[in-house]
Amino acid sequence: MQSPYPKDSLFSPKETFKTSILFSIKDGVGVLNDYLSIIKKHNVNISRIESRPSKTEKSDYDFFLDLDSKEETSTTEVDTILKELKSKGVDVTVLTEQKQTGSTTPWFPRKISDLDLYANRCLEMGSELSSDHPGATDQKYLERRREIARIASVYKYGEKIPRVDYSKEEVETWGIIYKNLKDLLKTHACKQHAYILPLLEQNCGFSETNIPQLQDISDFLTECTGFRLRPVQGLLSSRDFLNGLAFRVFHATQYIRHHTVPLYTPEPDICHELLGHVPLFADPDFADFSQEIGLASLGASDEDIERLSTCYWFTVEFGLCKEGGEIKAFGAGLLSSFGELEYCISDKNEKRPFDPFETCKQSYPITTYQPIYYVADSFQSAKDKMKQFAESLEKPFSLRYNPYTLSIEILDSRDKLVGLANNIKSQTTNLISALSKLKSLD
Amino acid sequence: MQSPYPKDSLFSPKETFKTSILFSIKDGVGVLNDYLSIIKKHNVNISRIESRPSKTEKSDYDFFLDLDSKEETSTTEVDTILKELKSKGVDVTVLTEQKQTGSTTPWFPRKISDLDLYANRCLEMGSELSSDHPGATDQKYLERRREIARIASVYKYGEKIPRVDYSKEEVETWGIIYKNLKDLLKTHACKQHAYILPLLEQNCGFSETNIPQLQDISDFLTECTGFRLRPVQGLLSSRDFLNGLAFRVFHATQYIRHHTVPLYTPEPDICHELLGHVPLFADPDFADFSQEIGLASLGASDEDIERLSTCYWFTVEFGLCKEGGEIKAFGAGLLSSFGELEYCISDKNEKRPFDPFETCKQSYPITTYQPIYYVADSFQSAKDKMKQFAESLEKPFSLRYNPYTLSIEILDSRDKLVGLANNIKSQTTNLISALSKLKSLD
Amino acid sequence: MQSPYPKDSLFSPKETFKTSILFSIKDGVGVLNDYLSIIKKHNVNISRIESRPSKTEKSDYDFFLDLDSKEETSTTEVDTILKELKSKGVDVTVLTEQKQTGSTTPWFPRKISDLDLYANRCLEMGSELSSDHPGATDQKYLERRREIARIASVYKYGEKIPRVDYSKEEVETWGIIYKNLKDLLKTHACKQHAYILPLLEQNCGFSETNIPQLQDISDFLTECTGFRLRPVQGLLSSRDFLNGLAFRVFHATQYIRHHTVPLYTPEPDICHELLGHVPLFADPDFADFSQEIGLASLGASDEDIERLSTCYWFTVEFGLCKEGGEIKAFGAGLLSSFGELEYCISDKNEKRPFDPFETCKQSYPITTYQPIYYVADSFQSAKDKMKQFAESLEKPFSLRYNPYTLSIEILDSRDKLVGLANNIKSQTTNLISALSKLKSLD
Amino acid sequence: MQSPYPKDSLFSPKETFKTSILFSIKDGVGVLNDYLSIIKKHNVNISRIESRPSKTEKSDYDFFLDLDSKEETSTTEVDTILKELKSKGVDVTVLTEQKQTGSTTPWFPRKISDLDLYANRCLEMGSELSSDHPGATDQKYLERRREIARIASVYKYGEKIPRVDYSKEEVETWGIIYKNLKDLLKTHACKQHAYILPLLEQNCGFSETNIPQLQDISDFLTECTGFRLRPVQGLLSSRDFLNGLAFRVFHATQYIRHHTVPLYTPEPDICHELLGHVPLFADPDFADFSQEIGLASLGASDEDIERLSTCYWFTVEFGLCKEGGEIKAFGAGLLSSFGELEYCISDKNEKRPFDPFETCKQSYPITTYQPIYYVADSFQSAKDKMKQFAESLEKPFSLRYNPYTLSIEILDSRDKLVGLANNIKSQTTNLISALSKLKSLD
Repeated sequence: MQSPYPKDSLFSPKETFKTSILFSIKDGVGVLNDYLSIIKKHNVNISRIESRPSKTEKSDYDFFLDLDSKEETSTTEVDTILKELKSKGVDVTVLTEQKQTGSTTPWFPRKISDLDLYANRCLEMGSELSSDHPGATDQKYLERRREIARIASVYKYGEKIPRVDYSKEEVETWGIIYKNLKDLLKTHACKQHAYILPLLEQNCGFSETNIPQLQDISDFLTECTGFRLRPVQGLLSSRDFLNGLAFRVFHATQYIRHHTVPLYTPEPDICHELLGHVPLFADPDFADFSQEIGLASLGASDEDIERLSTCYWFTVEFGLCKEGGEIKAFGAGLLSSFGELEYCISDKNEKRPFDPFETCKQSYPITTYQPIYYVADSFQSAKDKMKQFAESLEKPFSLRYNPYTLSIEILDSRDKLVGLANNIKSQTTNLISALSKLKSLD
Repeated sequence: MQSPYPKDSLFSPKETFKTSILFSIKDGVGVLNDYLSIIKKHNVNISRIESRPSKTEKSDYDFFLDLDSKEETSTTEVDTILKELKSKGVDVTVLTEQKQTGSTTPWFPRKISDLDLYANRCLEMGSELSSDHPGATDQKYLERRREIARIASVYKYGEKIPRVDYSKEEVETWGIIYKNLKDLLKTHACKQHAYILPLLEQNCGFSETNIPQLQDISDFLTECTGFRLRPVQGLLSSRDFLNGLAFRVFHATQYIRHHTVPLYTPEPDICHELLGHVPLFADPDFADFSQEIGLASLGASDEDIERLSTCYWFTVEFGLCKEGGEIKAFGAGLLSSFGELEYCISDKNEKRPFDPFETCKQSYPITTYQPIYYVADSFQSAKDKMKQFAESLEKPFSLRYNPYTLSIEILDSRDKLVGLANNIKSQTTNLISALSKLKSLD
Repeated sequence: MQSPYPKDSLFSPKETFKTSILFSIKDGVGVLNDYLSIIKKHNVNISRIESRPSKTEKSDYDFFLDLDSKEETSTTEVDTILKELKSKGVDVTVLTEQKQTGSTTPWFPRKISDLDLYANRCLEMGSELSSDHPGATDQKYLERRREIARIASVYKYGEKIPRVDYSKEEVETWGIIYKNLKDLLKTHACKQHAYILPLLEQNCGFSETNIPQLQDISDFLTECTGFRLRPVQGLLSSRDFLNGLAFRVFHATQYIRHHTVPLYTPEPDICHELLGHVPLFADPDFADFSQEIGLASLGASDEDIERLSTCYWFTVEFGLCKEGGEIKAFGAGLLSSFGELEYCISDKNEKRPFDPFETCKQSYPITTYQPIYYVADSFQSAKDKMKQFAESLEKPFSLRYNPYTLSIEILDSRDKLVGLANNIKSQTTNLISALSKLKSLD
Repeated sequence: MQSPYPKDSLFSPKETFKTSILFSIKDGVGVLNDYLSIIKKHNVNISRIESRPSKTEKSDYDFFLDLDSKEETSTTEVDTILKELKSKGVDVTVLTEQKQTGSTTPWFPRKISDLDLYANRCLEMGSELSSDHPGATDQKYLERRREIARIASVYKYGEKIPRVDYSKEEVETWGIIYKNLKDLLKTHACKQHAYILPLLEQNCGFSETNIPQLQDISDFLTECTGFRLRPVQGLLSSRDFLNGLAFRVFHATQYIRHHTVPLYTPEPDICHELLGHVPLFADPDFADFSQEIGLASLGASDEDIERLSTCYWFTVEFGLCKEGGEIKAFGAGLLSSFGELEYCISDKNEKRPFDPFETCKQSYPITTYQPIYYVADSFQSAKDKMKQFAESLEKPFSLRYNPYTLSIEILDSRDKLVGLANNIKSQTTNLISALSKLKSLD
């Protein structure tokens, strides 16, 4: 997958020259700003800033800063900054100077609000359509797409997702799909989908005559599994998209396909998201599985992102699973497509057991029905396998997700490991207690 | 501690007669409402409603309902309801009929939004002051208290906490306390408090000239530890207050003490909350410790609530801890009181090691300085001891907190235990990976 | 692999009719024997006898007995027994009567001394040689084989393995092999083999001029990993052999190949065992891996035994592993064969990554060099994969090995699970303590 | 408790000067001996010798040696040794030179055979009796004691414990006690004792007319819990005795009290061991608890040994436990004493809950009935508390017992921690599997 925008250049561009410095100050607030303004004045980028209480008597805080200068020659600017800081009496230490090369861990979001940075980094903007798109020449449709894309472009974490007042025509398009799919889903979708859809009707306004609103669905998902929706203008890069899953965030489009061909769309639209993806994210095991892919993608190499995207493709988009003696669909690409939903369960294609070590290598078409599908035993088992696959990817660090702070913790100190081990112990204590009190095996 | 309001009568009143029924229906939404309206018509309370996909062919959903009738005689109404439902062709099964007695597990919140139920259940309303309160006869002050109490009384989970536009007089009162305490805190407060206070100045507007706003602080705490603030009118019952901690929710008052005696308050006010409690809730180990008390309180007997309140008193309110060779204060009652902050570290009182099994039995004065303090080795160790104490309390069930959904999970089935064990395994895998990659022991 | 003897008929024959009965008695010892003699009198086999302290007042012990009658018709004998017991005033309850079918879990040893039952169950007795065996017509050699086989045939767990006084000719045969192999092993064997061999020379008398004694080696292995050797007459069935590994017991032959062709043997002999297998069993990770196969084999179906044997073949007998950038041999079949040891590391064959799910299906020749080898990343990783594979085999029960009592515990009660969970907790406590005290990452 | 023999001087004497050296050699066996003989020649003690495969090309093995010279001045001898080694071309590195002070971790056994070192280190030899001993002037009795003590003095781990052919008089003494105690035990002993005693009659020859043999009992205990008996001449020091428990080894006397006063003995004898201690060591939870004390004692300070002995006293010797609503005895000192067995359950003494943090401080009389007893909730709970207490003792290292090799592993490297964590993971996998397959909660 070729990334059409220079994604890394924003965060760890290959040609960057990075200088890590440490200095300590007596009193945090105002003074720090003075120093930072010196740096900003010289057009040098601060790519990281961290503070910790100082371990020495004479200072209150230590600050670690990474200064990124675009070319090696411009490091003279860094030198100037260092001199200026020293002249102010700051005791600066240069920790490392390194030319950033391809081997550097790619940037990744560390807390859920970091995802705000993706807002304008779509591969294909929702407002620009290729010439063969059914709505490519419909000016009204194009305007509507731009209008809806604007919501996503300014959305920030923590805000309510603005409601879209869908037109009668839009609701009709949705209605056609809803009506046509519903019966098919009853027999072809996995039991988790079948269980959740009526609850979405009850709680989030899913019906033939209404396009549900992202915020209502997001609230519902949060109560079920902690998943959240974020509006997105169009296609994100694989890395950005998968990184979102690490935080249990699913980037969902808010616009609808062109009304002239209601049963077809060349790109994800709200019908695909809401009928295909949303019901599954309400299932705890599926949520775990999806987050596992997301966590594996954080800081992964481009090659590993490719492998993880392929696993994502063959599960979250086109996955099948066993259910009793039958095969059912759980991939959103199947659940939101009449034709492929019937085809995928038939004998007209090849079915293999899902094994990320193998699946990750399989190539696939994106414009035709899949010739090969992968079948998971269960979401629990798929999650275990994905975790094992994730462990096999080479990364110089380990991390875990902190669901309290919605942030990523790098497990790089004894204290953090002791903390994790204490967590394990505490949960084992819970387990022992629960096991002792268990009244029934049902 | 005598609860002045009939707390249980709201949820599981002793004189209630409960009838659990099960019925199945073919199509969920509209039909259910028809049936429910039959029940409502007869003034019978539905204290529980749960659905699950039906396991039989002929129905889509099974519904479990608990019908509470206030007196045993009124069960005739339940009979009427059952007849009426059957006449509509509903196949109703009566599962159990039981007189609710005192042995029932007390009601407790199961998800974070359940805390909305506490809004109007204060022991002492923020708007009614006892005659010896410094502001008892100040009509303007009383009106101000009512105004601020109103915010808490209508607040719902998920909303932004409305900002209070504090008057110049109020800010001055805060300023006097802030200025007087700050120096004393530097030498007497535990290191966690000392570390966080400047960050609160930087991020949440803590300063001599500004009373910070609850929402800003709540946002900051959420990023640090997942703790949240909720506005509260006044004193909650111990049970309600501790139950909140299970969800990492701290109920904070928003009004300020009377301006005439700035260094004294007979009740918690915003100075106590913000200078005493808030900094500690930003510390992960303290947050864990506090939640542990909260989880122990869910469904606990009245006697155990009493024991847990006493532990809370001697830690979160009046706790001391070891720091190197010194004793420091971490209890909010100490950190927000000039006099007791100096006194507690002196030799004029007795100090014992914190041990919840002992501490829980100790009586204490509420209007004078404490004669006995309990000293924790560390928050981590206090948490371990609290967990062990919690395990020793008799409860017929085990639970765990789901930080993704901000809800309580009762561990009462094999599947849930397997889920928990899988969690342990998954974290152990994480630990092994992190241990293998650890680069330094610092 | 076809089992040439009707192994299951000894323990859970397909045509057996089993009656499980329960009775309680007041005083354990003498009385029980009276009852048992009634049963024995009727030629009914007791395949299980278990006791527990009685839960009722009137009895001291409850006894559970499984009575196996060979044909269904003979159940009349069971009826006679029951009548006779009742006439003696015994209160007998018939728990189940079931026809044993193929689906029954095959018998397996439950404690280490159960392995004594294998002594005379060899597929090929050590004393009977096929016509193309180099020693087939050498009467002196045949007599020697019989003599050594006798040791194994009467050996009981707990006894010292009798020493064999090897003849000058036998020692010379050993010496030729020892001398020829030693140099080759230095460069081709895995590092674990290379590390242990000199220690065996130092501790167990390995040298060109001495054939080491099984007891000395067994003592050495027990100190290293808890592995033990047992003398065996010849080839055991796969099931019996693998079952032994579950107890960290390796069945080793004690005779030596025919002196006329010292570099060839059509069957395992002491050279193969001591130079190929023994060094590896001194390695903790390899010991764990081997036991994992053994545990998986307990009560496994015949098909799964076949799969596990194949995994055993491609690891313990013919396994390769990665070592830095190189491939090294750790399979005993390779380490004790000049020709194949050089061949296996060459390019003349196919090498695949070890993955029990795949490896278990691969067929292999037993008389020529292997065309395919499987390469393990490490013993640790091989063990993890084997554990996962073991989990995937269908068995109606879970078990664990108790290394204190050298016995198998079936995990079939809440108490046992709580015990296991307590173990996990206790080890986690250990881990936390060790992590906290760790001084170096080396 | 004053240790009458200079226990530490044997292993880490306070006045020792220790030099740790490292050298590497090309070929292990013969060469090492040459070097060691140089060291021995100079009367310098080698207190540690460890080898590992060399990480450099030019050597095969690295050897670490600790050389102990008795006085600091004699380090000149170490210098001489170093020079001599260097003259032989050995590349010796001096790692550390340290004066051993009281803060050094006391020596402790690392493997089960290390216990052989205790054989002649009794506080009171079995053959020397104090003047008020009933047999003090009975020459025949004294000779008999010497004869039996000889067995213990030469016993080595792994050997069968020689059988004692008890005289008619000795058997009669045993018989009186056996007969008198048996009824009392039925009502006063804990259920574990009551359950095991009949099994000991069935399996180990316990009866009024026979003194059972230590080897038979040891075999029985090994099958039950992995506990073993070792014959001992008389009283060991607390440290030595508790250290034995770490290996699940109980040091048992083999002689019997003087026949003239069968119901009294001033010291442990075979009646006390067999009727008091042995039945409990057959219980898995009690075995775990006892080993926990033992593990805590390894390398503990003298003060902590004192604390642990006190815990041992109030549990293994004089412990009571809850059983339903009743109090029962499990301490061997109670179970083998008519008088105190009745007294301890009566109201004539004080009973406190067992809590090692408190219990460890309690003083106690050794010649009269106890005024205070400690009551355990269960062996499981006692074990948990003991583990927690053990964690609180200050030690610079963490260890775990390896039940496969019957040895102690110091957890001082990343690899060992990863190994332990893998163990935890592996057991968690087991637990998940067992939980999934559990058929009943009984």
